[in-house]
Amino acid sequence: MAVQREPSLSPGLRQQLAKIVGAEYCLTDPVARESYAYDSTPGYRAFPAAVLLPASTEEVAEVVRLCAEAGLGITPRGAGTNLSGGTVPVDGGVVICFTRMQKILSVDLANQTAVVEPGVVTAHFHQAVEAQGLFFPPDPGSQSVSTLGGNVAENAGGLRGLKYGVTRDYVLGLEAVLADGSVIQTGSQTLKNVTGYNLTQLLCGSEGTLALFTKLILRLLPRPAARRSFLAYFTDIERAAVTVPTLVEAGVLPATLEIMDRITLQAVEEFAHLGLPPGLAAMLLIEVDGQPAQVEAEAAMVEAVLSRSGASEWQAARDESTRERIWSARRAALAALSRRRPATILEDVTVPRGQIPAMFAAIESIASRYQLEIGTFGHAGDGNLHPTILCDLRDQEQISRVEAAVAELFDAALALGGVLSGEHGIGLAKNRFLHRQLDRTVITLQREIKRVFDPQGLLNPGKALGVIP
Amino acid sequence: MAVQREPSLSPGLRQQLAKIVGAEYCLTDPVARESYAYDSTPGYRAFPAAVLLPASTEEVAEVVRLCAEAGLGITPRGAGTNLSGGTVPVDGGVVICFTRMQKILSVDLANQTAVVEPGVVTAHFHQAVEAQGLFFPPDPGSQSVSTLGGNVAENAGGLRGLKYGVTRDYVLGLEAVLADGSVIQTGSQTLKNVTGYNLTQLLCGSEGTLALFTKLILRLLPRPAARRSFLAYFTDIERAAVTVPTLVEAGVLPATLEIMDRITLQAVEEFAHLGLPPGLAAMLLIEVDGQPAQVEAEAAMVEAVLSRSGASEWQAARDESTRERIWSARRAALAALSRRRPATILEDVTVPRGQIPAMFAAIESIASRYQLEIGTFGHAGDGNLHPTILCDLRDQEQISRVEAAVAELFDAALALGGVLSGEHGIGLAKNRFLHRQLDRTVITLQREIKRVFDPQGLLNPGKALGVIP
Repeated sequence: MAVQREPSLSPGLRQQLAKIVGAEYCLTDPVARESYAYDSTPGYRAFPAAVLLPASTEEVAEVVRLCAEAGLGITPRGAGTNLSGGTVPVDGGVVICFTRMQKILSVDLANQTAVVEPGVVTAHFHQAVEAQGLFFPPDPGSQSVSTLGGNVAENAGGLRGLKYGVTRDYVLGLEAVLADGSVIQTGSQTLKNVTGYNLTQLLCGSEGTLALFTKLILRLLPRPAARRSFLAYFTDIERAAVTVPTLVEAGVLPATLEIMDRITLQAVEEFAHLGLPPGLAAMLLIEVDGQPAQVEAEAAMVEAVLSRSGASEWQAARDESTRERIWSARRAALAALSRRRPATILEDVTVPRGQIPAMFAAIESIASRYQLEIGTFGHAGDGNLHPTILCDLRDQEQISRVEAAVAELFDAALALGGVLSGEHGIGLAKNRFLHRQLDRTVITLQREIKRVFDPQGLLNPGKALGVIP
Repeated sequence: MAVQREPSLSPGLRQQLAKIVGAEYCLTDPVARESYAYDSTPGYRAFPAAVLLPASTEEVAEVVRLCAEAGLGITPRGAGTNLSGGTVPVDGGVVICFTRMQKILSVDLANQTAVVEPGVVTAHFHQAVEAQGLFFPPDPGSQSVSTLGGNVAENAGGLRGLKYGVTRDYVLGLEAVLADGSVIQTGSQTLKNVTGYNLTQLLCGSEGTLALFTKLILRLLPRPAARRSFLAYFTDIERAAVTVPTLVEAGVLPATLEIMDRITLQAVEEFAHLGLPPGLAAMLLIEVDGQPAQVEAEAAMVEAVLSRSGASEWQAARDESTRERIWSARRAALAALSRRRPATILEDVTVPRGQIPAMFAAIESIASRYQLEIGTFGHAGDGNLHPTILCDLRDQEQISRVEAAVAELFDAALALGGVLSGEHGIGLAKNRFLHRQLDRTVITLQREIKRVFDPQGLLNPGKALGVIP
């Protein structure tokens, strides 16, 4: 992708923007613009004309009004942990970065809801509500730096999705700035609300293309009182994969049910020296949580399934330090894989849970045909896998194989009743594949909805809406 | 409301429609048209020109294409249990009734999903999946006759909403016929899916105004292995109301947490002779469910809260027959209230859970000022109350007091951070109040989205989109 080095603002516009957010929060120098030219997706990079860091809804609305008048594109972003190029400012307009809007405005214990600004870091929010005996389940892998606004814009998933669902399941309402600078409220502080169309859920996962969020009303749960983790090693990936639906069919609904394949485990062992046994083909990580008595009961069910699963070895974490050791392997997965090659192309194809064994077989076949190293880990309980292609973006011949392999991964997932993306979004990276999943009528409907919200096409230009072949 | 007795089809159109669905499923005689002129909402009645009962997606699509060409309005309906007038064919067009499309097409045990036609009766679906060890939580009061398509169109709630959420939380995807007769697929069979805008959730709760559903992909859970019900009597409504948030703050998430007030309890006792103690001001019905050990633990927490709650008496159902007796009181509520006056105006204002005591105080004040008998029951855990005004639609003077009281109920709920409707929808009955909750920009956005899906305004005309004052 061509890097636009010199988009720039007219001096007049720059002055007006600086007046709204304050001169020190209107960044136009090359270093700052370069810092906001990319996100966590390899291969995408584009300089914005300016980076704006507003501090309030009013400032966001004023900036948007000014951009709308000037016909200038706006790429919203939080911490830039996006994995589909969704926060790369490809049109050379402005980036609005929400990291200064980081207040937890209220936590309502009786109603179990919170109102937050979009720039609150996910893990900070976890800590804040857990200190009050509450629980916010969505926990994307990037939680220690990702922001809640970005999580909502992408409808981020995480490790607790099987039992608790994804970000959108915890969004009750939004305050949002539309493309003309007007401010709307969607949803409510109530748990139930059928007044009007569900704009809240339309906006969740809309990848910054419909509106900019300035407040989030989030639903919380009581904090689970106990949890128990299990680790199971397999010398055969098929057996591990089959254990996933078997566990759920047995009536257990684990909070977490993760899988890691041979390549991922090798990378983790080289990286973190956890003392994993050699010759492993797969590992499952399972965690049940809830009331202590419930955890005991579900743990017994997990043990019963694992003992018949053909696992070469399995263990329960009876204490917190063993749990930490078990979890560190999973948390290290992406970092460990990233160390092995200059780039990791991290996909997130998702299939119905029962198709996990077939999806693993498809990944293996694709890796072998294209002679690529693909490490796969992910949220097996949700059917959401992260086949991670280890590669070097400078090697053109290899990249053409990677591209062909990615296209085949998508086709394989779709053929199994799956989807292009479970949690990372379409963004730039999957935009040209959208029509493989959605038909022309649906893509057209989406574009017309986009036009209702953003007739000039200023919000996150170039993302998520696909191409009609 | 004026009753349109004589809308009719041209003989040519009637013949074409009869050819699509079969002559016996194209009803145009006055008796049939009268049977589809109303739903469960008192005071609304309008004859359709014809009633069509298609048997397949193809038939629905062909009927819609023909209606689109003729510019004829379409009111979709299932069993007609709607409580906001949403299935009353006010424009005199055709009713498309989905009750013949009643097949459960598949239940996937590994993936815990099902695909069904929209006319499947909710309770039949409960029985079918429970027989396979699975569980479909949404259980609207009308479940024994209501259809799943209608539940999705209204985003129906029910008695298990506190722990399990509402219908939309179990809808993964839809097959839908658009206003021009084209057929789209939204969502997927996967638990996670961020490909494209969330059209599935936009359509859930859209009250038949955006598209007609022909297939539903539903998410299921493992069937809870155990449950325990509790009944608590109070001589003071305030104490009962305060117990609701207290229970949840204690860390229990009951499946069910219902309240009934004095007037409702009196009506139930007169109707069902359950032997309720005299002089009660309120009753709470609580049910916890899950793994047996979890139920034991949560039951102990409920008992601890109830013993400090100021309840005059409380009991746990230790066996299924006691549970049945406890539940029969709740199930009889609306029927019992209905017997006392010719009409019951059933509202469903919803407030944040912590505002339940304040909402009860507001209802009492409104009842007293307008000299009306209002029995209130509902899903207290969700903040979703059903103040039920007992009245006689023939008494014009009384009806004007009822109308003023309803408007004040809405204002009171909104002032407490609540919403007009928690689960019954806007339909006709709340259409003229919509702008009290939603501002002009949001109402305009909704109308523009409607126009994208249905440019001619043929789908469920006159419903849900409000008036701009």
